[in-house]
Amino acid sequence: MALQSFLKIFMPKNKIFFELFEKVANNVEKMGSLLKDVVGEPDFDKRATLIGQLEDLEHANDDLTHNLFTELGRNFITPFDREDIHYLATSLDDVADYIYAAGKKINFYRVNPNDTGLQKFAELIEKGAEQVKIAVTGLRDMKNMRGITEALVKINSIENQGDDIFDFSIEKLFENEPDAKEVIKKREIYQVMEIVTDKCEDVSNVIESIIIKYA
Amino acid sequence: MALQSFLKIFMPKNKIFFELFEKVANNVEKMGSLLKDVVGEPDFDKRATLIGQLEDLEHANDDLTHNLFTELGRNFITPFDREDIHYLATSLDDVADYIYAAGKKINFYRVNPNDTGLQKFAELIEKGAEQVKIAVTGLRDMKNMRGITEALVKINSIENQGDDIFDFSIEKLFENEPDAKEVIKKREIYQVMEIVTDKCEDVSNVIESIIIKYA
Amino acid sequence: MALQSFLKIFMPKNKIFFELFEKVANNVEKMGSLLKDVVGEPDFDKRATLIGQLEDLEHANDDLTHNLFTELGRNFITPFDREDIHYLATSLDDVADYIYAAGKKINFYRVNPNDTGLQKFAELIEKGAEQVKIAVTGLRDMKNMRGITEALVKINSIENQGDDIFDFSIEKLFENEPDAKEVIKKREIYQVMEIVTDKCEDVSNVIESIIIKYA
Repeated sequence: MALQSFLKIFMPKNKIFFELFEKVANNVEKMGSLLKDVVGEPDFDKRATLIGQLEDLEHANDDLTHNLFTELGRNFITPFDREDIHYLATSLDDVADYIYAAGKKINFYRVNPNDTGLQKFAELIEKGAEQVKIAVTGLRDMKNMRGITEALVKINSIENQGDDIFDFSIEKLFENEPDAKEVIKKREIYQVMEIVTDKCEDVSNVIESIIIKYA
Repeated sequence: MALQSFLKIFMPKNKIFFELFEKVANNVEKMGSLLKDVVGEPDFDKRATLIGQLEDLEHANDDLTHNLFTELGRNFITPFDREDIHYLATSLDDVADYIYAAGKKINFYRVNPNDTGLQKFAELIEKGAEQVKIAVTGLRDMKNMRGITEALVKINSIENQGDDIFDFSIEKLFENEPDAKEVIKKREIYQVMEIVTDKCEDVSNVIESIIIKYA
Repeated sequence: MALQSFLKIFMPKNKIFFELFEKVANNVEKMGSLLKDVVGEPDFDKRATLIGQLEDLEHANDDLTHNLFTELGRNFITPFDREDIHYLATSLDDVADYIYAAGKKINFYRVNPNDTGLQKFAELIEKGAEQVKIAVTGLRDMKNMRGITEALVKINSIENQGDDIFDFSIEKLFENEPDAKEVIKKREIYQVMEIVTDKCEDVSNVIESIIIKYA
């Protein structure tokens, strides 16, 4: 930390990485909360409005991620290893992409979101996105290591719960849904939601590797 | 650029990277054009011949990509960052792989290519492959920055159009195709074609990152 | 090799990488053998016991992979390029994950494993896992280059055979299985098994790149 702190004095541009990552993490948290609203909204048109908000946040995150890569190309000195910055930016971008994809597919396939698997997944993703925000925000000063590691542990638990919800949902789907076309549609949405929890774990893994090196 | 130019005088082996990338990009362009021929050919056996040509080009590209990785392991000095060369080679290889996969699956699944989604995708992929060739070829001297960036902008627009064609095709498929097994087959081909446009965007992104650093 | 050998004297901690990789490769080999037992076992409950053993090995490998990443973050000097160590660890972890997934899905979907495609795939994966072990183990002293390269050639051939078995299995599936829901289930298992052979090839490719640089 000593060398890092020293460098920070001479490299105020480093702040840009923290600022961009925090904006991304804030958007991810909002998207997690919005996805739960989407799944809780019975009306197709009202859901469409919420999905439009998800899309706006996803586009905003694309721009922020693009800025992160541009800064990475431009700055010789970075607050963490370049590969970790790259991987963290990519993983957060993936979380946002798949949250938006989950919401979009519900209306696209005209699936009724009043479904145990979808409800449970949306709750889980909301929690995962909250912990992602906590972990990413903690990177700036790394003073609250306990807070960061608690968030990482929760994200790993959420990923495991995601696997269980996926298995439960797929099992019920094949048992109870006679229409194979409906099976294809719902299975795809479950898969996308399960990938969200995987991508949150990717975020967690890279943050763990960052704090091992720098803490 | 000054240091780069200086190094080039002493490191003529650097040329090998440009030569290999240009051969790959030429093959990708040919494959894009061939895929459109495949989709436009109503006769199964004549399509099989065209798909065989796709396969030959894909194998040739595998060898070229392998050569690129070997050169990367062998050369200490490279014209761009090692990670960018690796990523560009991988992305171009993916474009070729998925174009071939798209063609192959049409005959494998005995799908009738006289289908609006398949036709639109094939036209789009042909255009994408052309722009990939322009962007990759421009890397050698980087004199025509405007030409490169125009190609990158077009590739990004093609990726967006790919998403729209995919959504349109899937929506029609679920509406109009009563046989779930046919839904599975065509959906897979649409997915592969959509991935081609994603992989073209990966090529575009790494080229953008290269020109930001070196231009 | 001279510099490498010199460093090894002063950096005995380097051994940790070889030890961890060998443990992972041993587990992968066991898992390949177990998957063949799973597919050969007609009784659901007895299969469940074998799948439980696969799960234990997969968890053990997760821990080993995690240790590898921790060592990579901790050690400045590594026996190969850091990116190669990272990629090798990731690829081996993927092989283990997908072998376990293949076994798990057989009981999860209550699929009868007495199926030509599943049988052929399990035999192929067992062979692939054996060759992976040989190639990884050879990295420690690199004295038996011929043994390593023979293993790599076999893995590449296994990946090609995997593609053929996949195509054969999918073709039969669409021809003979009238229930689209069954098509979805079996197709997913074939896909996972085919990915195992792809991931073995990833292992092979990174080992090839390591021996090109260091041999």
